[in-house]
Amino acid sequence: MSKTYRVAIVGATGAVGLKFIECIERRKFPVSEVVLYASEKSEGKVLHVNGKPCRIVGLRKERVEKFDFAFFSAGSGISTQYAPLFAEKGGVVVDNSSAWRMDPGTPLVVPEVNPQDIAKHKGIIANPNCSTIQMVVALKPLHDAAGITRVVVSTYQAVSGAGGRALEEFENEVHALVVNTTPPKRAIFPRQIAFNAIAQIPQKDAFLPNGYTGEEHKMIEETKKIMGDPSIRVSPTCVRVPVKNSHSESINVETLKKLTAAEAIALLRKAPGIVVSETPGDFPTPAEVSGRDETFVGRVREDWTVPNGLHLWVVADNILKGAALNAIQIAEVIIRS
Amino acid sequence: MSKTYRVAIVGATGAVGLKFIECIERRKFPVSEVVLYASEKSEGKVLHVNGKPCRIVGLRKERVEKFDFAFFSAGSGISTQYAPLFAEKGGVVVDNSSAWRMDPGTPLVVPEVNPQDIAKHKGIIANPNCSTIQMVVALKPLHDAAGITRVVVSTYQAVSGAGGRALEEFENEVHALVVNTTPPKRAIFPRQIAFNAIAQIPQKDAFLPNGYTGEEHKMIEETKKIMGDPSIRVSPTCVRVPVKNSHSESINVETLKKLTAAEAIALLRKAPGIVVSETPGDFPTPAEVSGRDETFVGRVREDWTVPNGLHLWVVADNILKGAALNAIQIAEVIIRS
Repeated sequence: MSKTYRVAIVGATGAVGLKFIECIERRKFPVSEVVLYASEKSEGKVLHVNGKPCRIVGLRKERVEKFDFAFFSAGSGISTQYAPLFAEKGGVVVDNSSAWRMDPGTPLVVPEVNPQDIAKHKGIIANPNCSTIQMVVALKPLHDAAGITRVVVSTYQAVSGAGGRALEEFENEVHALVVNTTPPKRAIFPRQIAFNAIAQIPQKDAFLPNGYTGEEHKMIEETKKIMGDPSIRVSPTCVRVPVKNSHSESINVETLKKLTAAEAIALLRKAPGIVVSETPGDFPTPAEVSGRDETFVGRVREDWTVPNGLHLWVVADNILKGAALNAIQIAEVIIRS
Repeated sequence: MSKTYRVAIVGATGAVGLKFIECIERRKFPVSEVVLYASEKSEGKVLHVNGKPCRIVGLRKERVEKFDFAFFSAGSGISTQYAPLFAEKGGVVVDNSSAWRMDPGTPLVVPEVNPQDIAKHKGIIANPNCSTIQMVVALKPLHDAAGITRVVVSTYQAVSGAGGRALEEFENEVHALVVNTTPPKRAIFPRQIAFNAIAQIPQKDAFLPNGYTGEEHKMIEETKKIMGDPSIRVSPTCVRVPVKNSHSESINVETLKKLTAAEAIALLRKAPGIVVSETPGDFPTPAEVSGRDETFVGRVREDWTVPNGLHLWVVADNILKGAALNAIQIAEVIIRS
């Protein structure tokens, strides 16, 4: 009989928490037991895992137990406080927050890009930012072949990336505008998000002194760490668009070595976790990619303005590959190794 | 008594045609008479101009008359055929289609950028593509000060840019998805546009052999012509987003001379037709900019990845500054000169 694992999900009632459960079920992750933690106000609520009812445990220090894997998606505060407590008990924490990502002792992992970093963990492995994950999946084969020097990326980020309450606020706002009533007062977004585009992520305390936002800063720093190459310079503009789920990215890449569009497509076709459009009209869209595990790349073409440049249009499910799925895939690599 | 002008609007019933009327009224364009042309199927329909009923004239060769200004927005086919006929009678055609834009004998004009080209006309002046107009308005003061060499731009284009029927298709699709029914069959867009992002403009026959779309090609070529500088290299990715009106653009600019963000903001503040955000959080959004005449620039910041680079977030009403208003402004320059 093959080995099974005791698993915790911390932040089980959130958008990503629920996707952890879905990924565990759908990918037949070999669990012996799943314990669902959430805030104390969700205590006693029942969710189902693999068809079995599972009561939410309110997260408190004295309730931390030993697990083989603890998947965290409960915000940076909870991760800062609790990830070390779970790690101390043994097993591996895979943390979806930003708390540990840039910690030098914590690997930041996308399995298609730097699976070798998993072995360096000391109990915690960080899951990168959603926008970063899908970008580095697409960039990795090009970097290996041609050496990426600079990336200019503009994102088209879905509302689900701001969480379940943000999605609800968005849907209420759309509904109000469609039926011609006054939308309810906003609690999450700084501006109207229905039928609009907001060049600010995150919603609060977004801007750094250099004018980049927190989200843009994450894409800059996380890319260097995941790719293991501090020489890759990324300049992002992150924008929230009125799409429910899946992030899209317009990526401009400059490389040391020339790659033709055909060569880039051939590299992407062979790369793990990628579906590449073979014809221009076959580009991915976020609505069509939602619910899919892969990172989709289309509009691959040479940039006529530089000797060695490419454009890519990269779309992935930000809650799956951009969050829950990537974390589960990290655990799957550990299980296989 | 100041001079008044006999004006024709060709394509008066379309989204841009109606905005021509609105701009004439709102800006008190000095008209003696306005004749509205549209397809023969709209013949006899009545619109109001300055409060007076105005019957639509079905467009036929024998009905072409002499006007001081004829504002065209009825598609390239009509412009190719009819603009020379109106021009032959005397007066000036300002054409919003792509028919005459790249014709070497036809000026392509944005009044804030190249008003001097107006005088070169031989009866027809071309109005640029919507995405190009707002970009060159923002680029012009930076180019004059620092010499732009390369632009990488990703657009977030509103549905109204695809015309009135496209907007209707979009609204029907949103409504169907909100009330949970099956959306009606699409006639305009190649994919779902509600809650989605489509990296293809225009809807049909979009892709050139080099992988760029027709819209992207327009931005490349029109920018060189309007700026009067064939050395400016633009590489665009044009994307339709589920926004009703006003285009947004994430623009990365490389210049010969270094400009700090503060210097760029100061230049933009002094430039005509621009409203620049002075603080990072004060960036424009398309829903807020709709109905405004100016081009709005925010998120001005230095690109850390190159010695001389800037990011801009540029938003403008694509039916006003991107189409009808720009054409009326061209005529206003002629009147003033």
